[in-house]
Amino acid sequence: MTDTLQPLAPGATIGILGGGQLGRMLATAAARLGFHAHVYDPDPAAPARETALHHTAAPYDDEAALRRFAGAVDVVTYEFENIPPAALDAIERLAPIRPSRRSLVITRDRLKEKAFLEESGLAVAPHAPVEDMATLEEAVRRIGLPAILKTRELGYDGKGQARITTPEELAPCWEAVGRVPAVLEAVVPFEKEISVVIARGGDGTTAAFDPAENLHEGGILRLSKVPAAIAPDLADRARAMAARVAEALGHVGVLAVEMFVTQSGLVVNEIAPRVHNSGHWTEAVCPIDQFEQHIRAIAGWPLGRGERIADAEMVNLLGEEVLEAPRLSRDPHLRIHLYGKSEIRPDRKMGHHTRIVPWSRG
Amino acid sequence: MTDTLQPLAPGATIGILGGGQLGRMLATAAARLGFHAHVYDPDPAAPARETALHHTAAPYDDEAALRRFAGAVDVVTYEFENIPPAALDAIERLAPIRPSRRSLVITRDRLKEKAFLEESGLAVAPHAPVEDMATLEEAVRRIGLPAILKTRELGYDGKGQARITTPEELAPCWEAVGRVPAVLEAVVPFEKEISVVIARGGDGTTAAFDPAENLHEGGILRLSKVPAAIAPDLADRARAMAARVAEALGHVGVLAVEMFVTQSGLVVNEIAPRVHNSGHWTEAVCPIDQFEQHIRAIAGWPLGRGERIADAEMVNLLGEEVLEAPRLSRDPHLRIHLYGKSEIRPDRKMGHHTRIVPWSRG
Repeated sequence: MTDTLQPLAPGATIGILGGGQLGRMLATAAARLGFHAHVYDPDPAAPARETALHHTAAPYDDEAALRRFAGAVDVVTYEFENIPPAALDAIERLAPIRPSRRSLVITRDRLKEKAFLEESGLAVAPHAPVEDMATLEEAVRRIGLPAILKTRELGYDGKGQARITTPEELAPCWEAVGRVPAVLEAVVPFEKEISVVIARGGDGTTAAFDPAENLHEGGILRLSKVPAAIAPDLADRARAMAARVAEALGHVGVLAVEMFVTQSGLVVNEIAPRVHNSGHWTEAVCPIDQFEQHIRAIAGWPLGRGERIADAEMVNLLGEEVLEAPRLSRDPHLRIHLYGKSEIRPDRKMGHHTRIVPWSRG
Repeated sequence: MTDTLQPLAPGATIGILGGGQLGRMLATAAARLGFHAHVYDPDPAAPARETALHHTAAPYDDEAALRRFAGAVDVVTYEFENIPPAALDAIERLAPIRPSRRSLVITRDRLKEKAFLEESGLAVAPHAPVEDMATLEEAVRRIGLPAILKTRELGYDGKGQARITTPEELAPCWEAVGRVPAVLEAVVPFEKEISVVIARGGDGTTAAFDPAENLHEGGILRLSKVPAAIAPDLADRARAMAARVAEALGHVGVLAVEMFVTQSGLVVNEIAPRVHNSGHWTEAVCPIDQFEQHIRAIAGWPLGRGERIADAEMVNLLGEEVLEAPRLSRDPHLRIHLYGKSEIRPDRKMGHHTRIVPWSRG
């Protein structure tokens, strides 16, 4: 599947659905290539408004606002996968959406995503669909315990998930996820978590960044580092799997594939059709980072190669940890990046820092 | 001289006088540290408006606008040295200006700047003041020909300069620079041009980036590369000279010192009390670049060390060269940076690119 996009010239405007930190970093990358960014986000204080030329502050069901937005931009992209389909309908008549809706439709639904991955020949955790208590009990019989119940849609950062350890927990867990369509997943015993951030251009070329080794705490990414402590052939295989996902989706833009390293090989945990927290280290050590790769891909520009020029370790600043930034700034090897969010909430992603470990000179 | 600045907390607002590419990159660096940027520039389409949260589009003699601006920010800095003193007067009553006015007063006038450098024990080109044709003739008798006539104020990118080779050219050159107070400078035979970009904090600490080797064409910077092909002790001496300048000015922020490498040692050409075109490579290969160093200094944060993690060569994109950007993007080792200027004029700085030469892994 190829999408022979006419390259956008500097001066064109890139529309971004979602004005959080990912939209903010996409807008900055767009500006650096001479594009203007127009962010759409219901929050008048959305972090991305700060680094974008234009900001439409309107809800995702405001059709008139969506049409004005789409009419004012040359291409529309997004920082999150849970965009209401009706909003996409309104936009699509006026501006191309990249990555395409296929990438969104598959990745916003855990069950569709797993089916897609299996059809693409990639291993996923044993899982079963859950519609009600009866199908949940049936799923537990098939998958066994412990297992994790996850909503099919709208989950992120550990939200919409409940771990089931004993049969007594079935009912409270079903309540906890909100009695909505869900998937029961086996707990995969893994040695490590890794992720590959990859870009695919409209011409079908792909360029992957090095796999990052990730550490989650409470369902939220805490740390990503490169290089991952894995064998070179496993890194190659992870990259190839990410390329297969991008290819099978016909994806144009950046996507991230999270994987478990298990005794029996790599198991895909989930995919995100966008720039990803586990790729934030790229801004510190890559000549062309994940944000610029995404803008290049959707603008029809040639992709960078995903090269890096140093080792790196990225750590998220959650909630009140952001208040440590001035103290952290004493360490001259940390590159600090804050998102300009005024309201601190527990576990809210407020910023990150990347420790840069230079290679040796000459 | 020290300026014990209370560190600004993220969420504070940094005012920037001047909304060109330097203001734009300063605003981006400020946002990355969680500060808000407020740009003041008469041009409603100033490049920096795009990456700053606030933009006041008003002339530099609009006292009411200046007061509103100064009242809305926590500190004021600037991207250029030719700010009308009356504008600074209006601001200074409401917000601190960093770097201080001393840095501006000395560097906006070539004659004062040279006197300051000589008092600081640094070598400058033989020169003499010019007020009219009589003093110009007198200056030529002292300095000899060829020589360069430069206006004392408001010169940049080779503007306000005329090269005098023969006595017949005196009158036309005096016309060419506009018959305003000027300096006649001897032409210094140099082997190379270098510059040092250095930051000085309010606590008096300094951190210099590696000297860059520069190439000018028609008075405009064409190329800067690191490392400069000079002996290590000369590089150390250049750094020490830049530190002496920063110290003697009591400068808080980044400044740049341009020097000639001559047979008799280093001769200072000029100083700029701000981030500088010959330091643009730092954004590509330094964990903390010149723009962030400047923001850190004026915000009272600790400085980075000026370290870099790769070699680099920065080339300016002038005028229509910017149209080459999509073609240049095919080279995956170039980091492209455009300024979002819609109007292309001959020799206008439209962007730059930096070729990154990685060090070896492990």
